[in-house]
Amino acid sequence: MATHSRWVLASRPSGMPEEANFRLEQGPVPEAKQGELLAEILYLTVDPYMRGRIKNAASYAKPVEIGELMQGGGVGRVIASNNPKFAPGDIVEGMTGWQSHVATDGKGYRKVDPSLAPVSTALGILGMPGLTAYFGLLDVGQPKAGETVLVSGAAGAVGSLVGQIGKITGCRVVGIAGADDKCRWLTEELGFDAAFNYKTVADYRAKLRELCPNGIDVYFDNVGGTITDAAIAEMNQFGRISICGQISGYNADKPETGPRLLFHFVVRRLRAQGFLVFDFFDRYPEGLRQMAAWLSEGKLKYREQFDYGIERVPAAFIAMLEGQNTGKMLVKVAD
Amino acid sequence: MATHSRWVLASRPSGMPEEANFRLEQGPVPEAKQGELLAEILYLTVDPYMRGRIKNAASYAKPVEIGELMQGGGVGRVIASNNPKFAPGDIVEGMTGWQSHVATDGKGYRKVDPSLAPVSTALGILGMPGLTAYFGLLDVGQPKAGETVLVSGAAGAVGSLVGQIGKITGCRVVGIAGADDKCRWLTEELGFDAAFNYKTVADYRAKLRELCPNGIDVYFDNVGGTITDAAIAEMNQFGRISICGQISGYNADKPETGPRLLFHFVVRRLRAQGFLVFDFFDRYPEGLRQMAAWLSEGKLKYREQFDYGIERVPAAFIAMLEGQNTGKMLVKVAD
Repeated sequence: MATHSRWVLASRPSGMPEEANFRLEQGPVPEAKQGELLAEILYLTVDPYMRGRIKNAASYAKPVEIGELMQGGGVGRVIASNNPKFAPGDIVEGMTGWQSHVATDGKGYRKVDPSLAPVSTALGILGMPGLTAYFGLLDVGQPKAGETVLVSGAAGAVGSLVGQIGKITGCRVVGIAGADDKCRWLTEELGFDAAFNYKTVADYRAKLRELCPNGIDVYFDNVGGTITDAAIAEMNQFGRISICGQISGYNADKPETGPRLLFHFVVRRLRAQGFLVFDFFDRYPEGLRQMAAWLSEGKLKYREQFDYGIERVPAAFIAMLEGQNTGKMLVKVAD
Repeated sequence: MATHSRWVLASRPSGMPEEANFRLEQGPVPEAKQGELLAEILYLTVDPYMRGRIKNAASYAKPVEIGELMQGGGVGRVIASNNPKFAPGDIVEGMTGWQSHVATDGKGYRKVDPSLAPVSTALGILGMPGLTAYFGLLDVGQPKAGETVLVSGAAGAVGSLVGQIGKITGCRVVGIAGADDKCRWLTEELGFDAAFNYKTVADYRAKLRELCPNGIDVYFDNVGGTITDAAIAEMNQFGRISICGQISGYNADKPETGPRLLFHFVVRRLRAQGFLVFDFFDRYPEGLRQMAAWLSEGKLKYREQFDYGIERVPAAFIAMLEGQNTGKMLVKVAD
């Protein structure tokens, strides 16, 4: 008989999370009640925003409480349904939580077309990370052909797509990542014009001046911290900063300090805008349609990095926070 | 015979400028050459941006070199003209520099209508500070009726107008200034809903929560530093930050440090935009027309604070940087 496995938050991490902050609970597989579907989960995603959900602080979403199911997205196969919108065999994507099965009324779930691409891409290029890259670069950053786009966290699920969309837009694209092989992937496979490994470069500003000889017009920021200090200092007049994430500070227990940056904003008329992909909810169909079109035309490439088994989800989450992934980090939970 | 007096930069200040950083030079009054007008200067303005012009650093404008005439705006009366666009008796406004007379080809100068308001207002409410408040609040900040607007440097030439325009827009307006009498002026005469003296308040965030019970939607920032740290931490989702100046840091020789602020941008989808009034050059007529209309309708009030005599310009400039002025700081140079 199948077992239902679910990860709950056991304790709040201080600094980098540890596996012991999560606890695996097991029990009987739930049933699909009236109006519900039951899905067996195939893939779970681990994403930077989850670090915010396990802080004891109000954010744009309610934090996960101790003992509660850990929040997160997943792709599953419907195995029973008392909901007329879903049938057994359907592949669905939604906020399943970190578990092996989900019984849900289907609100916020969508069906995934397995003929379009591997269904795991519903958690990556054809899902939330893809939409984040699409709207965060094009709507918030507003790049124009001929401009220079800089991306931090460039080898991650979002950053690697941002750079490619920047190339489609006709920009010079420069990426910052944390390993030489990631940088080679960006320039040799994804078409970035240049990339550098921030772990082996001492003077970020000098490196940015070298790789962005015409300055930076759009900075897509996933990381914050000292990389962002340097990027903002090298921006052109009327530059735009699209603030997607600040992962370098997510494990900090107190706000970190750094040089004051707002003076640059006056002198160079910079604009910084934070965003969440949910702000563009009404336009998800447009974004998904365009990302799928670019993918089928060969204009976008992606990489997925898998861990295997429900028991590995916390480890995969921590590995992602440590920057061990290239492209989208996923856990394959069932075949 | 009249003497021409002019202030040149004698040395670059370190920290707060001193009068000794400027040198008064005297000589014969220049003549209006072919195509030029000669004006006797009536009023000179001292403004925060001038601190940036005497740094040895590239900014949006070339710095004043040692020995060069100090840059700045003034209002003058034409006393001779070989330029068909200007006649003796005309009142003109332009970048005269800190001097008693100016001979110029008239480029960048405009005629001032003395029937509209005292001609000194061409350096304040009906000039650059007025336009800065108008475009910086309405275009950059985009306040909507019912929202809360917070203004730092609220008793200055720009801030005092920003708050009043916020009231015209239908917003709750809260000001931050550096003296109790300035705060009384804001609330009792200008119609601000509340104001506080940052020099006598220890916990800015608590005070902001008290005075902005619905949070802050638009923050018009003239000062930066710890006041801005607190303001940004108290902003509402989708809040806008219009960055006009960062006067608290202008005398710093090195970039100051402070808490990293960009995480707030992601969580609350904030937008910060720096601007210079010159960016709106094409729309100056609109701005001046509207400010003059509001002034004549009694919807805007202003205060001017005068020092007297060309020899007092550096002292007035320093007093303004120290926050000794309420409203627009000017030097009356001639009757």
